[in-house]
Parts: sequence; structure tokens; C-alpha cells
Amino acid sequence: MTVTQETPTRTVTRESAPLHASLIVKGRDRTGIVASVGALLSSHGANIVSLDQYSDNPQGGAFFQRTVFSLDNPQAVLPAIEHDLRDRLTTDFELEFMVRDMSLPKRVAIFASKSDHCLLDLLWRHRRGQLPVTVAMVISNHPDTAEEVRSFGIPFFHVPSMGADKSAAEAEHLRLLRGNVDFVVLARYMQILSGDFIKQVGVPIINIHHSFLPAFVGAGPYAKAKERGVKLVGATAHYVTEDLDEGPIIEQDVVRVTHAHNAADLQRRGADVERAVLSRAVEWHSQDRVIRHGNHTIVFA
Amino acid sequence: MTVTQETPTRTVTRESAPLHASLIVKGRDRTGIVASVGALLSSHGANIVSLDQYSDNPQGGAFFQRTVFSLDNPQAVLPAIEHDLRDRLTTDFELEFMVRDMSLPKRVAIFASKSDHCLLDLLWRHRRGQLPVTVAMVISNHPDTAEEVRSFGIPFFHVPSMGADKSAAEAEHLRLLRGNVDFVVLARYMQILSGDFIKQVGVPIINIHHSFLPAFVGAGPYAKAKERGVKLVGATAHYVTEDLDEGPIIEQDVVRVTHAHNAADLQRRGADVERAVLSRAVEWHSQDRVIRHGNHTIVFA
Amino acid sequence: MTVTQETPTRTVTRESAPLHASLIVKGRDRTGIVASVGALLSSHGANIVSLDQYSDNPQGGAFFQRTVFSLDNPQAVLPAIEHDLRDRLTTDFELEFMVRDMSLPKRVAIFASKSDHCLLDLLWRHRRGQLPVTVAMVISNHPDTAEEVRSFGIPFFHVPSMGADKSAAEAEHLRLLRGNVDFVVLARYMQILSGDFIKQVGVPIINIHHSFLPAFVGAGPYAKAKERGVKLVGATAHYVTEDLDEGPIIEQDVVRVTHAHNAADLQRRGADVERAVLSRAVEWHSQDRVIRHGNHTIVFA
Amino acid sequence: MTVTQETPTRTVTRESAPLHASLIVKGRDRTGIVASVGALLSSHGANIVSLDQYSDNPQGGAFFQRTVFSLDNPQAVLPAIEHDLRDRLTTDFELEFMVRDMSLPKRVAIFASKSDHCLLDLLWRHRRGQLPVTVAMVISNHPDTAEEVRSFGIPFFHVPSMGADKSAAEAEHLRLLRGNVDFVVLARYMQILSGDFIKQVGVPIINIHHSFLPAFVGAGPYAKAKERGVKLVGATAHYVTEDLDEGPIIEQDVVRVTHAHNAADLQRRGADVERAVLSRAVEWHSQDRVIRHGNHTIVFA
Repeated sequence: MTVTQETPTRTVTRESAPLHASLIVKGRDRTGIVASVGALLSSHGANIVSLDQYSDNPQGGAFFQRTVFSLDNPQAVLPAIEHDLRDRLTTDFELEFMVRDMSLPKRVAIFASKSDHCLLDLLWRHRRGQLPVTVAMVISNHPDTAEEVRSFGIPFFHVPSMGADKSAAEAEHLRLLRGNVDFVVLARYMQILSGDFIKQVGVPIINIHHSFLPAFVGAGPYAKAKERGVKLVGATAHYVTEDLDEGPIIEQDVVRVTHAHNAADLQRRGADVERAVLSRAVEWHSQDRVIRHGNHTIVFA
Repeated sequence: MTVTQETPTRTVTRESAPLHASLIVKGRDRTGIVASVGALLSSHGANIVSLDQYSDNPQGGAFFQRTVFSLDNPQAVLPAIEHDLRDRLTTDFELEFMVRDMSLPKRVAIFASKSDHCLLDLLWRHRRGQLPVTVAMVISNHPDTAEEVRSFGIPFFHVPSMGADKSAAEAEHLRLLRGNVDFVVLARYMQILSGDFIKQVGVPIINIHHSFLPAFVGAGPYAKAKERGVKLVGATAHYVTEDLDEGPIIEQDVVRVTHAHNAADLQRRGADVERAVLSRAVEWHSQDRVIRHGNHTIVFA
Repeated sequence: MTVTQETPTRTVTRESAPLHASLIVKGRDRTGIVASVGALLSSHGANIVSLDQYSDNPQGGAFFQRTVFSLDNPQAVLPAIEHDLRDRLTTDFELEFMVRDMSLPKRVAIFASKSDHCLLDLLWRHRRGQLPVTVAMVISNHPDTAEEVRSFGIPFFHVPSMGADKSAAEAEHLRLLRGNVDFVVLARYMQILSGDFIKQVGVPIINIHHSFLPAFVGAGPYAKAKERGVKLVGATAHYVTEDLDEGPIIEQDVVRVTHAHNAADLQRRGADVERAVLSRAVEWHSQDRVIRHGNHTIVFA
Repeated sequence: MTVTQETPTRTVTRESAPLHASLIVKGRDRTGIVASVGALLSSHGANIVSLDQYSDNPQGGAFFQRTVFSLDNPQAVLPAIEHDLRDRLTTDFELEFMVRDMSLPKRVAIFASKSDHCLLDLLWRHRRGQLPVTVAMVISNHPDTAEEVRSFGIPFFHVPSMGADKSAAEAEHLRLLRGNVDFVVLARYMQILSGDFIKQVGVPIINIHHSFLPAFVGAGPYAKAKERGVKLVGATAHYVTEDLDEGPIIEQDVVRVTHAHNAADLQRRGADVERAVLSRAVEWHSQDRVIRHGNHTIVFA
């Protein structure tokens, strides 16, 4: 294995306990937000399990807060909390917020092509209980991984996508996804999604790009890396936007290579980084640890 | 340079602004602590700049919170905040707390011996404005670094320490330190401090040990590492207790070595890790990011 | 994913080409060894593809050389080369050597227990063509992974091993292994092998220990690591000797952890390092990159 | 400290012993080169201390070999070896070679501007005996570091370089450098060298660029990195060519950053990577470990 860096991730276990909920707050920073949120949660008997907060400028900058709290009866109390938050945060502070029952794992569809390393790593981690998601389905433009995916007990759909016109394939994708998933992961899916699809699917899409963006944008990054003689190759997990390889970066990592590695070696070593980086991004997204802000992300990892 | 790992440190700059203060709270976890602290700070017009919180068990476990807040007039308001905190936290919640005006850098004494890499790295970083401390003095049992230290404008005291009886040297140390420093850093100081000295000095002492503790406890760790044939060597910054090499670990890191490195090479490569690890520990301690808890540390880095 | 360090591995592909052979030479260093070997290979029409050499002291120290060379007709020429090497190296230089046709992958048996992360990672890398070995069989003291292993087309043998007396299980192991494998990998096999078994099996055994040895020797290393409050956890691949956890280290790596990780988290994060470290050790061993020397290894990675 | 990756460097000490010499060979690969070189060195009584070899294709690809050998009397024997090498390698094999007495350290001029972290790290490593070079002089377009540089016993020359026309400054540079140095290091020298200067100076020039090239080419890379929201920042040491930031890369490394770091923080964290990467590049270059090949480097680190 080859990944050279990492960030501290906290345990899935504790925060995913049945009675936990997450609250994301974002907006313009003002005095008293943390106190207000704390008081509001307390008044409903919620106990704060963890709290992360970031402000890019305490004088009116952008404010971000992630709070995980426990409740004896989330189903009953969460609506009331949400109602009060709407009152307090939206009205008084003009903040956005999102509250979610963490006992309900997010549902994900994984898109893949022929390359299986990212796909299988996610399925393995999921089976080991390390990814708090429900893998609703795997969609691939190749049938190759069908049997393996189904051996994990996960539905596999083969949606061919040939030629320049992706509209038929994307229509099929939308039919499969609509209402069924909370986010999509492109696990080395080698097709470009249309802007129209991105809009219509209506859920976040996470992609793994096989380079340390913004180096080696576009196709064939390992060949380009070999050509340039770099001493590290990397991978980047990012949210997909209409601008190819330009979406908000969630996570990146690199691995050392030498003159003795050819482009195929870079690809092989890079594969380990890709699966590592993607699994971190998926874990963090599924735990509401990633907040989008313009073309950036705040990651409370 | 050789260090292979790192953790995210946030900027010194912003949090060290003139009007900032830090608040550390620790004790048994109960519902409502974060909210109470938030409300109390708000009521004094304090604006929370950053907040880190950790509980090892939300049901009555150990609770830790670090809050940095800004005030328009800290000198005037901090005493009132402290008074209210005493009321609220100590009485209602049975918590300990520590509040500190961050515009007043902590004063440190650095102890060194002949080896200068850790000492000079700290002095350089300090001169570059990267360590928010006042280096009150350097104390060494060798005169070798006197000129270099003084060229940084820092007082240097040579206190020889020969033979088994350290009491004279330690008495001199106490005379120099008492009232003058908020913590002590042993920057490869090659003398063992007596339990009596540790008690009397009354401030935290940070040591850098030249191995990845608990591997290779005691003297000559690089020789031991070579003997055992390890593939990584490391360094550990820890608070000094009476039990040699057993105090609470603040930070650790490692660097790769190979069969081709002899013990002197390990020492040379290790020196880079030592200075890196020690500088992180000193930075974090000086920013109140490290909370001791039994023989562990909570590090809000 | 979590692994924080790595070493440069070169491509499997090129050196494993059908017409390649490896030559390992070790012994006391003397002037002229490299030249002699080079001349001898040249005289048989061998072309040196790569050459690594190390001497811990050019004046009579220990000398190690790994040479990969290509031949048009290895089956025909290798015996002649071996004959000449015996003449030259053994007689003139008193060196040991080992020559091997790299087109014949080493045969390995993998031992596992309930934990499947190391086992599956090896099988998956093997299927991707990244490990130049033949996986002859998987042996486990638990039946749990049987179906998954067999889905890779690999024989699975369940050999229960309960109680203190392992002799029946070990006899069964020997029956299965004898003549069938070139080395054994313990992929988190949770049984201690007897000294008698190690002797009788007669092939190298590689183990993955779930700590950065020599820290946390023995059972329960993650719990011990949590107890000590370390900031990194690691894994160590080593050759098995009769002294538990004391055999020659092949590879090690670490991953950062924080106060917020409990022992289960350390185990989860450590699992990523374990599979990474073990896969490197297996790859290097299968390519004759690891030379044992007393309780150390020379690794031409 | 912050550097997250590293490569194995071997000890300076052993290979820099008084009686060692290095031989670099490059050209088109053919059968028998290693053997020929070995035989030739043996015939002069040279003992090979270390040998690294790389061929990008054993069938007529590019061949590279670095050999360090010891001689009882290098001054007397090296000319004879060189003569024979010319005969054998140049005539028979059409190879290029370079042989050098390693007891004579390469002479280097360090160029700096206001920023002192790379400059001081090099001087400090040099003083500790870790860089086998003679620092002939430091040249800066600012006088700020004069006193500190001279305290290391090293000549400092202030050569102002203002305005678009650098020709006067460059003429002064050439006057200082000519005949006095074997290579030049740009240790965060914030002036662009003209193509004419590069040609006339006639020795290799190593630059440290403050980004992971090819990401963030040109000025202000940390601001660009912040803008793009990357999760790692890096540094690149490369040989200077007329194409700005496009020369052969010697070494690269990265360090993790988060959303909480502003551009100044990136710069501060990056500074640690810069000095680490540059010191490795300088060490390797001074030990003849780096071979240029087109726009790539072979690094036998």
C-alpha cells in the first residue's frame, strides 16, 4: 500500500449510534450563534456529543458549525428542534441549517466502469461496517463487475453508454436514481456527465480524479505525470459540477514515485491512493462532515 | 528534510490577535455545558472565534472544551467572565476551567545541551513569528551555544551539571526560573530532572524524546533501533513526569530508514523529526491546544 | 484510507517478464565481486536489467547484491550459469548465492482467521496482477471466508485449531503445505506457530503484526496503544522465528490517530496499515527483494 | 513541522570518505556495460562501495549507472581510470561518463532574497556536516541576511537587482561565480534569471519552487492554492532551464492543509516543505545522485 498522508477521522461507531442527529449551520458570522444553538438544543433535552465550528472571519465572515447531539427520542423531538431552529436561525440570524437523524444512513448509488479498485474498496469497507451508508445500487456502463457486486447483496444495473449521445443512458440513470438515493459516487466512472443530468439528479455527486488537481486536469493524468517527471502522483475527490475537474475538492493525497516507474506503475500506485481518498470522502460526506461553500469545502474530519 | 507525517495546525496569526482569549473547560460530561458556556460568553459581548469540544463518553464521561473568543476590551471584561465562569462551571457543573488573555504570550525557558538542532529550530521559528511565546531564557549545561543564542537577543545561562548530584544545578535552575516562565522546554537536554525539581518548578515541562515511544525507552534509542532493524525511526514530545519517558504524549512522528542507514544516519534523520515534533508541541502548548488528562492528552490541533 | 508513509516499489511488470532471472549474492565483502558477477553473466549472454548492491563495510563487511538479468533461453542457460556461479562465488569468494527463474512465480499459502482485510487485499491484488505469486491455498482455523476465497478460484482449507495442543492442526498444515509452497503468509492468523512447525515447514513465513514493533509486543496492541496515548499506530511485517514478534522486520508503517479515537477506531485505522504493509512485504519477498541477514533484512525495494 | 513524505537518503558520511570517487555512466543500454565497468575498476584496485543502475528498456533503452568506489590513492589512480573509461565506454559503448573525486566537495553559491528559511536551513545543515559541499558564497539582492550569513563564516555579497534590466546584476553575478562554483542554488531567490545568464554561468542551477509543480506555475502559488481549495500544498526542487518552472524535477513533497488555513498559513506551512525539499535536492546533487536525462531526472537517492 502506498498512501502517504492522512487526516484524523473519528470513529464511525459512536456518532452513528441510533439516537444521534447532526446539525449543520452556515451563514454570516455574528456574535451568539454558538450560544443560541447550544441553548436551543439544551431546551429540547439534546446532549451535544461533538461540536466543530469554523469562521473565516469573526467580523461578518462566513460561519460554519457542525453539531452532533443525542436525543432519547429523535423521531419525536427532531421536528420540534427543526421548527425552533427555523425560527431562531433563519429569522434571527439569517443562517441556513440542515438537521438530520443519523440513525438513517444516507443512500448512495455507486457508478463504475471496468476498473474495480475504488468500487470494491467501498463495498468491502461497507460490509465491514466502516461506511455508514446504504448502498442502494451500483450502475456501470460495463457488465464486468455484475457478479462481484451482487455477491455483496447489492443491486447491479448495467446501463451501456456508447457514442456521443448520452441522453438515453442518462435518462435511464435518472429513472433508477430518482427518489432512491441521497448522493452519487463516481468510482472511476469513465463517462462525463452532462450538465443537464447533474441538475436533474438533484443530489450531490462525488468523483475521484486520478491526479492531484489542479495538476494534470483531464484525461490520461498518469501519462502526463510520467511525461513531466513528477516525483509524486495523487488523487482528488471532489464534488461534481458542470466544469470538468473544477468542482469543490473534498480530499486529496499523494504517493511517491521514482524515475523507475513507468506510466503503468504510476497507474497502479495511484490506484491505492484513489481508493483511499475516495473512501475518506464518502465516509465524511455520509457523516455530514463536509460543507460546501462556493468552490471550497469545509471538512470537519 | 525527513518528516513523514503531520497534523493540521491552524494559523497562529488569527487566534493570537490582541483581543483574543482562550477558555479551557474540563470535567465530567453533562447536558448543557456547551450551551452554558456559549450563553455566558455572549452575555459579556464575547464573540466565539473557534470552539473545539470532545467527550470520551456523552453519558458522564470526561468532557473537554477549548474556546477562543474575542473581546473589545479583554483586560476589563476577562475578570468578570472569570467570575461568572467560576459561578456557573465550578458550582453548577463541577468543572475545572482556565481562561487566558492570548495577547500575553506564554514565557518559556529552553533547556539544551550540546546538540543544537531543536534549540535553533525553536529560536528560528520564534524569530519568524511562528511561535507565540516569549523566550525568556536558554539554559544549558554546556557553553557551546551561548553566542548563537545571544545573537537572537535571548539571555543564555550556563549552568554546569556534572556528577550524580544535580542539586546545586537544580537550585540554580529554580532561582532562574521562578516567577519568570510559564513552561519549560527540554530541547534535547541530556540531563535527567529530579522529581523534586519537577515538583518545585511548578510549570509544565515539555521534553522531546528521540524515539517513537514506547519503543526504545531510555538512553541510546537510535542504536537500539539499528539493532532491532526497524524501518522507521521517530520522536515523541511529552510532558515530563517523575516516570522517565512515561509522561503524557503530546505529539509523535516518524521517518523512514533503510538497511543502508547506520546508527549515525538514524540519528541524523531523527534530528529532523525531533525538531519538527518539538516545534509542533511547543506551538500547540503555547496556544492552549493541549489538555492533560491523566496520562493522556487531548490535542485540539 | 490511512497509510502515511511508503517506499518506492518498482513495477512488477518489467522484471517479471518471461525471460528474467534473479541472482542474490551475499557474504563477506571483497574487491571484485560485482565485476566477477557481471563478467560471468555477460559470458553467458545475460543482460543485466537491474542491479542493487549494499555492503555494510567495504573492508570485509557483509556484502549483498541483487541482480535481475534477461536471457533468451533461461531454461537452457540457467543451469550453466548456476554451475559457473558455484565455481566462482563459492570457491573463489566464499559467497552464498541463489539464482531463480523469475518466470516461475513463487507459490504461497495464506493463513487467516476471522479477520479478512489482509487476506482479501492480497487476493484482490493478486487478481489484478500486482502480486507475482501463485496462491496455492488459503488455510484458516475458521470457515467464515471459505466462500469468498473460493470465488477467487483459490482452494480453501478449514483446519480448526482449538485448545492448547496445536499438534494435530500443525500436522494437517504440514501435510497440506509440504512440497506445495515456497513461502507462507500469516494474514492476521491468530494462532501461534510452534517452533517445531516453523522448523518442519522449511519455507519462509511472513507475519503481519498489528503494531509498530518493538512497541506493543504481544496481544492486544491497539488496546495498549490507546492506554499509552500514542499519536500514531502502526503495523510490522516480519519473518517468523521462534521468538514471538522478534523476527527480522521486512516493512513497517504507521497512521496518525488522535485522542478522539477509541481502541476500536485504532483497530479500524490500523487495519488499513496492516494490509498495506503486508502487501508490500509479500510483493518484495516474491520478487527476491528481501535478503535476511541475522535478525535484519536488506530490502532492495 | 510539516513535511509529510520522504525518501530514503543514505548517509553522507560513508560515501564521502577521503578515498572515495564516484562514476556516473549514461547512454544507450547494451549487454555488458555493468560487467565492463566492474572489470575496469577492479583492474585498478578499486573496490565498489555502492552501485545503482537503471535502464528504461534493457533492449536499447537509456542506461544509467552510479558507482561509488574506494581507492587507496585516488589522486594517482583516478587519471588512469578516467583514461581507461574513455577508451572502453566512449569508444566501445558510445557512453558518456563522469568520474569525480568525492573527497573534493562541490562548491556552491546560494542565491537568496529576503526570505531566509531555505538559506538558513542549508547553512545550518552544512555546519552540522550534513551537506558535503563548500559554500563558496551567498549572493542576495537584499542586504538583510548579511550578518547572519557571515556568522557562519561564509562570504555574503549584496547584488541589488531592481528594475526590468537585470544585465548589470547578472554581470556582477557572473564575475563572482566564474571559476568559483560547481553549482548554484536558488534558495527562494525572487528574481528570474535570463536565458543568457543560465547559458553563461555554465554550471547547474537548482531552484526551489513553492508549489507542487505543475500545479500553480508562476507567481503567488499559495494564494492560488487557497483559491482552488486544495488539501495539500507542496514544493518542487528542479534544475533551472530557460523555461520558467519547467526544468527537470529533482524532488517534491507536500504537506496537508485544511479549510482553516489562510494563504499566509499555507505559506508558513509550505516553508517547511520548501526547506526540506531543497535540502534533499542539494544533498543528492552534491553526491552525484541526480542524473539529468532530457527533462527528467534519475535520482539514486
